[in-house]
Amino acid sequence: MDIKELALKKHYQWQGKIEVISRAPINSREDLSTAYTPGVAQPCLEIEKDESLSYELTRRGNMVAVITDGTAVLGLGDIGPAAAMPVMEGKCALFKAFADVDAFPLCIDSKDVDTIVNTILLISKSFGGINLEDISAPRCFEIERRLKEKCEVPVFHDDQHGTAIVASAALLNALKVTGRKMGECKIVINGAGAAGISVAKLLLSMNFGEIVMCDIKGIIYEGADWLTEPQMQMAKVTNPGKKKGTLADALVGADVFIGVSKPNLVSQEMVATMEKDPIIFAMANPMPEIMPEQAKAGGAAVVGTGRSDFPNQINNVLAFPGIFKGALKVRASNITEEMKVAAAYAIASMVKQEELTPEYILPDALNKEVADCVANAVAAEAVKLGIARIYKEK
Amino acid sequence: MDIKELALKKHYQWQGKIEVISRAPINSREDLSTAYTPGVAQPCLEIEKDESLSYELTRRGNMVAVITDGTAVLGLGDIGPAAAMPVMEGKCALFKAFADVDAFPLCIDSKDVDTIVNTILLISKSFGGINLEDISAPRCFEIERRLKEKCEVPVFHDDQHGTAIVASAALLNALKVTGRKMGECKIVINGAGAAGISVAKLLLSMNFGEIVMCDIKGIIYEGADWLTEPQMQMAKVTNPGKKKGTLADALVGADVFIGVSKPNLVSQEMVATMEKDPIIFAMANPMPEIMPEQAKAGGAAVVGTGRSDFPNQINNVLAFPGIFKGALKVRASNITEEMKVAAAYAIASMVKQEELTPEYILPDALNKEVADCVANAVAAEAVKLGIARIYKEK
Repeated sequence: MDIKELALKKHYQWQGKIEVISRAPINSREDLSTAYTPGVAQPCLEIEKDESLSYELTRRGNMVAVITDGTAVLGLGDIGPAAAMPVMEGKCALFKAFADVDAFPLCIDSKDVDTIVNTILLISKSFGGINLEDISAPRCFEIERRLKEKCEVPVFHDDQHGTAIVASAALLNALKVTGRKMGECKIVINGAGAAGISVAKLLLSMNFGEIVMCDIKGIIYEGADWLTEPQMQMAKVTNPGKKKGTLADALVGADVFIGVSKPNLVSQEMVATMEKDPIIFAMANPMPEIMPEQAKAGGAAVVGTGRSDFPNQINNVLAFPGIFKGALKVRASNITEEMKVAAAYAIASMVKQEELTPEYILPDALNKEVADCVANAVAAEAVKLGIARIYKEK
Repeated sequence: MDIKELALKKHYQWQGKIEVISRAPINSREDLSTAYTPGVAQPCLEIEKDESLSYELTRRGNMVAVITDGTAVLGLGDIGPAAAMPVMEGKCALFKAFADVDAFPLCIDSKDVDTIVNTILLISKSFGGINLEDISAPRCFEIERRLKEKCEVPVFHDDQHGTAIVASAALLNALKVTGRKMGECKIVINGAGAAGISVAKLLLSMNFGEIVMCDIKGIIYEGADWLTEPQMQMAKVTNPGKKKGTLADALVGADVFIGVSKPNLVSQEMVATMEKDPIIFAMANPMPEIMPEQAKAGGAAVVGTGRSDFPNQINNVLAFPGIFKGALKVRASNITEEMKVAAAYAIASMVKQEELTPEYILPDALNKEVADCVANAVAAEAVKLGIARIYKEK
């Protein structure tokens, strides 16, 4: 049975990948009158007096909403809210499995930015955090920006930042393996949508080096007349040499290729034009921009993909469970760029110096110790930034 | 430790009365690729082709939203959305404990009818049913009415209809105990808010007899200048004798008193003016309109309250878990008056004829067999009405 058939069969068996259970026993009159009326009035009154107690007296302190509008689901595109729900439930299952964070899937039946922002704000007191998922660019940028301004709980668009954090972690270790220094890398990012832009921003704030972004029409430069608004912003802070041309042109002499684009856009020959021992992260899914064996044949020293059947899987699951666990732990009001950087270093640190090889630059996606390490780093950073609303350990 | 202290202590221990768990194992690469990428694309594509499959391939088929705006919480009033959440979570815990229905609590941070209706519509594809809770009158009527028109999943305001169904069930059996006939009862309902009006409507559609409603200003009659819009509607279909006066006036010669109002509004003397062997359902919580011992002293043959420490507890938990379980079972598009009637007869049937006594007219609130009995009756009625979208047994 191939993976498609198997997945469908299992989905029919599971009848949903999440379940809501009761943490309170409901077997006696006393149970009824403490979990429900009349006793439940007491925690209500406490929260009315001090709303922050909603994090302790209800599940809010450990509860994340995983929210989509169904417009950019996996590689499937705009399949609509109901059809996106298997992915949202899967994400919720991963939150629980990797970080013991409760997550609940919601789809919003609208593509309008105002409507989506308002709907999320209106229900945000039910949650301790908001994970945006599979919302198409450029709408996702504005939705996240406006929610981060207005929402009292942390908001995080995983497709952008989860990818950026794990790619940054991978790059930290790939530099070590190939003997490169921070600040001196020439990096080409192909794909200037939500993920590509977030990767570029995080690499810039971590000071990896010089970045050139490419999209379907070639190298992104200031003044190009085909740029979207977010791409124009990126043109100002990338491509300092003001290069023009194709992806192939961009790769000549580059140290690092990061692809968040489409299959088969990079050839063995193109890799051969890069600096010696280049680093190739070909993250298009399920088919990468270049297959690892071709990249190696072109001279690549380190190759990473989004796939679990090759070494160095660059998988968001290394980031988002721990990010939210950390934010919830100290009740951070936001998930900042600094916290993302802390998460990237934490993930990289899960591979010890002496274990590092070209085939092992990231912890295994199934390693359940990563989330705690990330959570601790993220929580500590929030405390340092003064945006942690509690400090106590869980 | 009194119940308030105990409830608060337990709420701190529970850290939330619900929890979201994973039904899919996440331990191997195969698990990751069936529950998440790339396998999860398959159920997404199936739902895109046929949206009704969202009920089978995600948790939607067993998932109810418990939604409030926090404006009419228990007897506490308008305590706000966050403070209402302990009640919503409690309700969700009861859904799971009594009917194995998954329920998730949401609070909406608005009091505006349009906003609340739209917010619920926008997220309704995430759920198989919507349970409205603790929304103040008269807004709750319009919110429910508009949602029932537009929403593809069944909508039910438990404060109205749950109370009405269980009170009707209790009355069915109380008539048997006191030798009364359907259609011949003179019934006084005190409290013409959401619950009182719903009780009156259901009793009328079940043809119990003649109803007189009272509110704080006395008997409701057509033309009274102090009526709210919903009360005006009720004035047209109740009080055929066009009585005016106080609650005490209304009770003279009545067979049944149903209180959904405030403590201590009915005296022993008032009960003594009713028909012989009157039926008293004093459901104000936690202090009833008249204490059972006083009602008995006034001549009451059957007394019910909302409390678990007296006989005949009229508790919504006998209705809502089974109602939604039944509606979900056959994927009913609506919860109709006929389905509520079916639920009332089902609840009443859980006390066998030979077991009926003045102290035992309703099954115990903790009896977990009631929900299945109600679910079967409600599902069968939906099928009969032609509003069941599937017929298969779960």
